[in-house]
Amino acid sequence: MPNASDNSTASSLSPASRNPYGHGNGVSDFLSNVSRFKIIESTLREGEQFANAFFDTEKKIEIARALDNFGVDYIELTNPCASEQSRLDCEAICKLGLKAKILTHIRCHMDDARIAVATGVDGVDVMIGTSSLMRQHSHGKDIEYIKKTAIEVINFVKSQGIEVRFSTEDSFRSDLVDLLSIYSAVDEVGVDRVGVADTIGCASPRQVYELIRVLRGVVSCDIETHFHDDAGCAIANAYCALEAGATHIDTSVLGIGERNGITPLGGLMARMVATHPEYVKSKYRLNKIKDLEDLVAEAVEINIPFNNYITGFCAFTHKAGTTYEIINPVDFGMTRYVHFASRLTGWNAIRSRAQQLNIKMTDKQYKECTVKIKALADIRPIAIDDADSIIRAYYRNIQSGEDSPLMDLTADEAAQFVAKEKELGNVVSA
Amino acid sequence: MPNASDNSTASSLSPASRNPYGHGNGVSDFLSNVSRFKIIESTLREGEQFANAFFDTEKKIEIARALDNFGVDYIELTNPCASEQSRLDCEAICKLGLKAKILTHIRCHMDDARIAVATGVDGVDVMIGTSSLMRQHSHGKDIEYIKKTAIEVINFVKSQGIEVRFSTEDSFRSDLVDLLSIYSAVDEVGVDRVGVADTIGCASPRQVYELIRVLRGVVSCDIETHFHDDAGCAIANAYCALEAGATHIDTSVLGIGERNGITPLGGLMARMVATHPEYVKSKYRLNKIKDLEDLVAEAVEINIPFNNYITGFCAFTHKAGTTYEIINPVDFGMTRYVHFASRLTGWNAIRSRAQQLNIKMTDKQYKECTVKIKALADIRPIAIDDADSIIRAYYRNIQSGEDSPLMDLTADEAAQFVAKEKELGNVVSA
Repeated sequence: MPNASDNSTASSLSPASRNPYGHGNGVSDFLSNVSRFKIIESTLREGEQFANAFFDTEKKIEIARALDNFGVDYIELTNPCASEQSRLDCEAICKLGLKAKILTHIRCHMDDARIAVATGVDGVDVMIGTSSLMRQHSHGKDIEYIKKTAIEVINFVKSQGIEVRFSTEDSFRSDLVDLLSIYSAVDEVGVDRVGVADTIGCASPRQVYELIRVLRGVVSCDIETHFHDDAGCAIANAYCALEAGATHIDTSVLGIGERNGITPLGGLMARMVATHPEYVKSKYRLNKIKDLEDLVAEAVEINIPFNNYITGFCAFTHKAGTTYEIINPVDFGMTRYVHFASRLTGWNAIRSRAQQLNIKMTDKQYKECTVKIKALADIRPIAIDDADSIIRAYYRNIQSGEDSPLMDLTADEAAQFVAKEKELGNVVSA
Repeated sequence: MPNASDNSTASSLSPASRNPYGHGNGVSDFLSNVSRFKIIESTLREGEQFANAFFDTEKKIEIARALDNFGVDYIELTNPCASEQSRLDCEAICKLGLKAKILTHIRCHMDDARIAVATGVDGVDVMIGTSSLMRQHSHGKDIEYIKKTAIEVINFVKSQGIEVRFSTEDSFRSDLVDLLSIYSAVDEVGVDRVGVADTIGCASPRQVYELIRVLRGVVSCDIETHFHDDAGCAIANAYCALEAGATHIDTSVLGIGERNGITPLGGLMARMVATHPEYVKSKYRLNKIKDLEDLVAEAVEINIPFNNYITGFCAFTHKAGTTYEIINPVDFGMTRYVHFASRLTGWNAIRSRAQQLNIKMTDKQYKECTVKIKALADIRPIAIDDADSIIRAYYRNIQSGEDSPLMDLTADEAAQFVAKEKELGNVVSA
């Protein structure tokens, strides 16, 4: 917040800056990592658990290269103990010499750790369930045993000179005392990161903020977070985790993963670029996001959702006149499209389209022209070239000196007029 | 949080209850409306601004009836001043006699207000831009003028005996002092609700919580919120607004609206049912969500996104063994599908599938059978019927007294075996 005792600063603030809860007001605190986070990209681990994912070696390598080219910090791979092919693929990707660090995900067992280390990865992500539900149903081990096993695995991985992360599973349904006790123990033996996972997708943003903030005060290592999207909060939870001091966010391309998936890479970029454009734009090649999503969508045989962040067909489409946007499509190699030919069209959209057509009129004239287009759109859906025709004809009439051109046409007459314009070859496709 | 001085209570808590930031621990406060919110459904207003939306009268009526049948509290319609047809459609929907209250959205003008009131609506939603950006680009009016006009419109609508809401536009980039001053003024003249709108989709969850919490302390009327999803926070922001004391949430079916849309009705249901199932399940007919989404998706010619909340094809699909779920598909008239035939298959999934096939084995036997299925899945993607064949044959071998059935087959032999099973007609499609 602006310092209230410093009047000279306060008075120089623009009005929008007086919203302490608002956007872009420069308020931040020392905890927040919103402008210095790292991405652990898990399309080749979490994403491989997506219902439709069957990546062969070649496809895995193609995806790994594309992720590296985009600029992700880490690429996480399926546990090499899951199958012999998973192990071979892990080795192959480690040998590509990518800039991104290669991680693999393992259960908290020495057997898994030995196999993982031997693949040549840069780091190992260890995971274990800690919620009472998990302890009961999944492996039945108590906290002291978990702690002992975790320390053994961590010490072994560290001794091999590579990174190690220790994560609990279903963290948001785990006992807080148990969680902090385990995280604190692994922090003391030198783990590189602890991981918090909302495995079932139940966490809400303020829960995430509070839990990560407490954890930030307990451990000195990095904090990684992993959010499922069952309840629609995966992007928001990642953001709040960063605000509370988390350092790493797990993503997958289009969010693919178990059930409806995790924090999507593109969606996280949309969130972060809206708030901290400098960091995101300087670090990640945002104009590669479309190709990356197309590659993965094709591999798992899905369509890009109509409303996908940034790349969905309507992400930058506007029907009403004013183009409210917090994200600049150009940053992502995309273009803006104002869909103006409808009964909701505002005169701003018509002005904007006229200007694209190199037609300059007065505001009063744009408004009159808009009335005509709206009358026609009320009768039937009109295409962009219909509206273009009206704009062009209206302008020609102005040029020829008419006072109130077209204003006395009925809707039918306007439709006839459009048809005539088409015959004259005056239609321009957008 | 549990009362620390009450040891008898504290000691009776289950371990999971000791996470004060966790799920389902009964922590709540007096501000929160997460278990008593209302829905203002805007598919026929915000949704009509979606790029592909061209609803005729018949389709609008069909959608309005379906929304009413689902149980939404309010249905919001396009400004009757937008076009003559919009006005006629508004009148027609008002005459349907739905349980849901009918609202229409208008600009803050007396002309709009008179036309809206004459349509027979139950309430009018007034909107005006207040951010400095809006004031400069959209209508150039200052705050005192906005206040004066708003009060005139509100007094008029109230005098007609119907509800009135006053909303600012682009609230999160507006000056806080201006915002509170306007909201306070309209509250004093008896507005039913004030509205906060994240028109550009930039707000983050903790900003929303803080702004709504302050507003909750300033006005005594209801608080409606409207969130765009450009940065992926529309559902999370709605949840945080309710936590801070908001009373009404704007939604649209599949989130359709300007750009990539607003808080989706189905996604909000997923969020709320995960946390407060009793309220949501008693009030809304959740098993109608799929039909409602199909109706709207067809009308605007889009596909349901693969990862859509609840109804997307993978929402309840699991590849790994354990079915982590916070949402019960049955509540929504959906079924669970464990996609088990992959190299990531756990023996829990195989056990679950075997039980569906009425085959009972020991855990050791399920695990052995799983090894075989995984070996085959490593070579080529296997379909659900391939796995079924292996399970059935394995079980038959057990019945016939073999010690370690199938365990000595190579992957090639297993593939041949599956082919043979198919010839024998032993394949069962899922």
